[in-house]
Amino acid sequence: MVRSRDRQTPVETLEPVAGNGLIDRRALLGRGMVLAGAMSTGIGPASAAAEPLADDPWSLEVGDPMPPYQGPSKFEAKVVRTLSNPNNEPRNSHARTPHHLLEGTITPNGLHFNINHGGVPNIDPEKHRLVIHGLVKQPTEFTLDTLSRYPMVSRVTFIECGGNSAPLFSPEPLQENIQALHGLVSCAEWTGVKLSTLLEETGIDPRAKWFVAEGADSPHLSRSVPVKKALDDAMIALYQNGERLNPGNGYPMRLLLPGYEGNMNVKFLRRIKLVEQPAMSYYEARTYSQILPSGKAYRFYFLQEVKSFITRPSHGMALKGPGLYEISGLAYSGNGRIEKVMVSADAGQSWAQAALQEPVLSKAFTRFRMPWRWDGGPATLQSRAWDEAGNVQPTRAEFVATRGELAKKPPVLAFPNQHFNSITSWGVASSGEVAHVYA
Amino acid sequence: MVRSRDRQTPVETLEPVAGNGLIDRRALLGRGMVLAGAMSTGIGPASAAAEPLADDPWSLEVGDPMPPYQGPSKFEAKVVRTLSNPNNEPRNSHARTPHHLLEGTITPNGLHFNINHGGVPNIDPEKHRLVIHGLVKQPTEFTLDTLSRYPMVSRVTFIECGGNSAPLFSPEPLQENIQALHGLVSCAEWTGVKLSTLLEETGIDPRAKWFVAEGADSPHLSRSVPVKKALDDAMIALYQNGERLNPGNGYPMRLLLPGYEGNMNVKFLRRIKLVEQPAMSYYEARTYSQILPSGKAYRFYFLQEVKSFITRPSHGMALKGPGLYEISGLAYSGNGRIEKVMVSADAGQSWAQAALQEPVLSKAFTRFRMPWRWDGGPATLQSRAWDEAGNVQPTRAEFVATRGELAKKPPVLAFPNQHFNSITSWGVASSGEVAHVYA
Repeated sequence: MVRSRDRQTPVETLEPVAGNGLIDRRALLGRGMVLAGAMSTGIGPASAAAEPLADDPWSLEVGDPMPPYQGPSKFEAKVVRTLSNPNNEPRNSHARTPHHLLEGTITPNGLHFNINHGGVPNIDPEKHRLVIHGLVKQPTEFTLDTLSRYPMVSRVTFIECGGNSAPLFSPEPLQENIQALHGLVSCAEWTGVKLSTLLEETGIDPRAKWFVAEGADSPHLSRSVPVKKALDDAMIALYQNGERLNPGNGYPMRLLLPGYEGNMNVKFLRRIKLVEQPAMSYYEARTYSQILPSGKAYRFYFLQEVKSFITRPSHGMALKGPGLYEISGLAYSGNGRIEKVMVSADAGQSWAQAALQEPVLSKAFTRFRMPWRWDGGPATLQSRAWDEAGNVQPTRAEFVATRGELAKKPPVLAFPNQHFNSITSWGVASSGEVAHVYA
Repeated sequence: MVRSRDRQTPVETLEPVAGNGLIDRRALLGRGMVLAGAMSTGIGPASAAAEPLADDPWSLEVGDPMPPYQGPSKFEAKVVRTLSNPNNEPRNSHARTPHHLLEGTITPNGLHFNINHGGVPNIDPEKHRLVIHGLVKQPTEFTLDTLSRYPMVSRVTFIECGGNSAPLFSPEPLQENIQALHGLVSCAEWTGVKLSTLLEETGIDPRAKWFVAEGADSPHLSRSVPVKKALDDAMIALYQNGERLNPGNGYPMRLLLPGYEGNMNVKFLRRIKLVEQPAMSYYEARTYSQILPSGKAYRFYFLQEVKSFITRPSHGMALKGPGLYEISGLAYSGNGRIEKVMVSADAGQSWAQAALQEPVLSKAFTRFRMPWRWDGGPATLQSRAWDEAGNVQPTRAEFVATRGELAKKPPVLAFPNQHFNSITSWGVASSGEVAHVYA
């Protein structure tokens, strides 16, 4: 019954598969690489080692009452979003997801990233309405109650701000952690009504080629979206990880456009208007346009392209001495499923394939993992993802050659571009400290 | 480009597929069944109907600041767990998930069910230790930091109390909602280290056939588990939907035994002791044993068997007049994947197959959905699930014939049994009101 370690873990699978200590992703660790301390009181395999176990204070007292809505432990008070505008001054507000402190693929609702342009509105769901009008056969108004009677769908998908990772346009690596660099992307299970189902109700005038989605918060953010996306996988999302949308995520309803840049997934959705031409709204013509080094701009850039980054270890962490570690990270693509992720520990000189956590879902976070034996010397960790459409993350050099980078000297007015998706590099020093580097 | 509704929705797919208005699960609804009101100001397909849209108060003011950790809208204050012991008296405490108010398959962390026997402890993760000892070759102690260096895995799985659904042992249907009847089951994405990985480190003495898992909270709840499960899919879970376990769910670590009854997934885990025989601990010999009508008891009953229930509509809701509705519910099995779910609107006289939301994962919630046209007459809604191992939910009559039911008259000392998994029935009256019935 009891399995032999030797049969389970052939020595050869523990051999490195790429430079600087990357180990085959199928390898179990084996007892030869014990990380934990053998117990000082252990006197043999069948002993009653350490009994009775010492009781800590929480083993000797009654705990707290159960709350109706459970929040995290008080010991996790540091696991929060960082805020760009905590005093709610009259400008936009960012709240970034702390990916270095999370694991798995679902972002808990409390930590989903947010960008709002007019604060977080308090919308009464009984009074909120969604109107579908313009080039439709029957303009129609929907209440939340009515929407709940239509066939629903659920899907796990990421949402990413077009400006996520923009700090990597800097000519020198910013000494910031992954929350600052890549914190404007999150992933949840969304449930709602497909927009195509509602357009079956309203009918579509054949002249309609676009729709304009508009939010009910004070900036009335609006974006133009091709009707083709409405008939594909667009959703009016009502639930986020099982419960109603959080206020910062568009309560009581938002547009969900899987794979498209965050701001197009219009929150507090109050209007879908079918039109012949894009509206060239303020937010799409100015705030979310992407300027190229030539001075020209991409008119529309919907897709969030294939990206990956290592979340652990990452900038700001410190390894506690040589030995075995797990490299863990996230990969995703607006084009579909992640096909593979390669990891390097020697700045891209050699690569090994990471394990992908099943199920690998389309346009969703995919967790990748790779065992690594750190020898105590300098190392540079990178990940590079491929999606099922054949796209691959560019190197940073390839990327900035096309898309530009910030000027080396002030004044630095703004990041020159969005949709940054090249490789992120973490430098591990002999001290064990991990820092953001370019490599 | 614009699809024709007539090609999309052939009339024949809207014909009923079973009695009392069940419609083919592949049917779109079609404009012939408009639920929403056409706008009173709508004057034609290409009009600027209802423009400008009226501005509600939240469209005219700046919203709230973003919080570091976002909670639900104040309008969702009723979406909470119900508590059996809000004053934390010296007995166990239950907190039940409000499934009638949720959608999708992930239970948000704030609403995951909990049962604790000594309140919710405040465990310092820096000081907490996991010990693996007994019949192992090398007794070993693990800190949270050490565990984070091992290869991790993520999986979505439900956890269900063995006593969930026990109110259905009552000889008369209790007039309670689904939170009271089935609120002791939830589903999350869990991430941690497989127990088999740690046992590779410690080695296993060939005499070990069981292990005893023990919690660090004051009741030190302990359960015996076959070593076979440890070498299969048992996990030391550290994260729940991306963030560290919530305090009520075992922070900082719990045993996860996918498909096994809830209390065996020992929370606040401090010890795994390998042994030759089960320990017959208080909780397994008394609290969580299952007594049969003969007076005998099942010695061990680990598996949570195939079950399903309709969450919407369900007891306590009221349909707003005849017309189209979506029937939505949850199915799951400790044996593996859900194979199919059948739905009846006429108390089991006829059945139609529900749509299952992909991905259908092993030992996880599967959301099923079925369109239904209510004609305004009495209806009895039921769901019945099959799992991939070929198990089917029993009818209530079949189930209580084997397992017994409560006495019809007081004194009623306790529910006679656990692991109730038969069909749940909701009666829809002509008024639209929905009540728990036996059928």
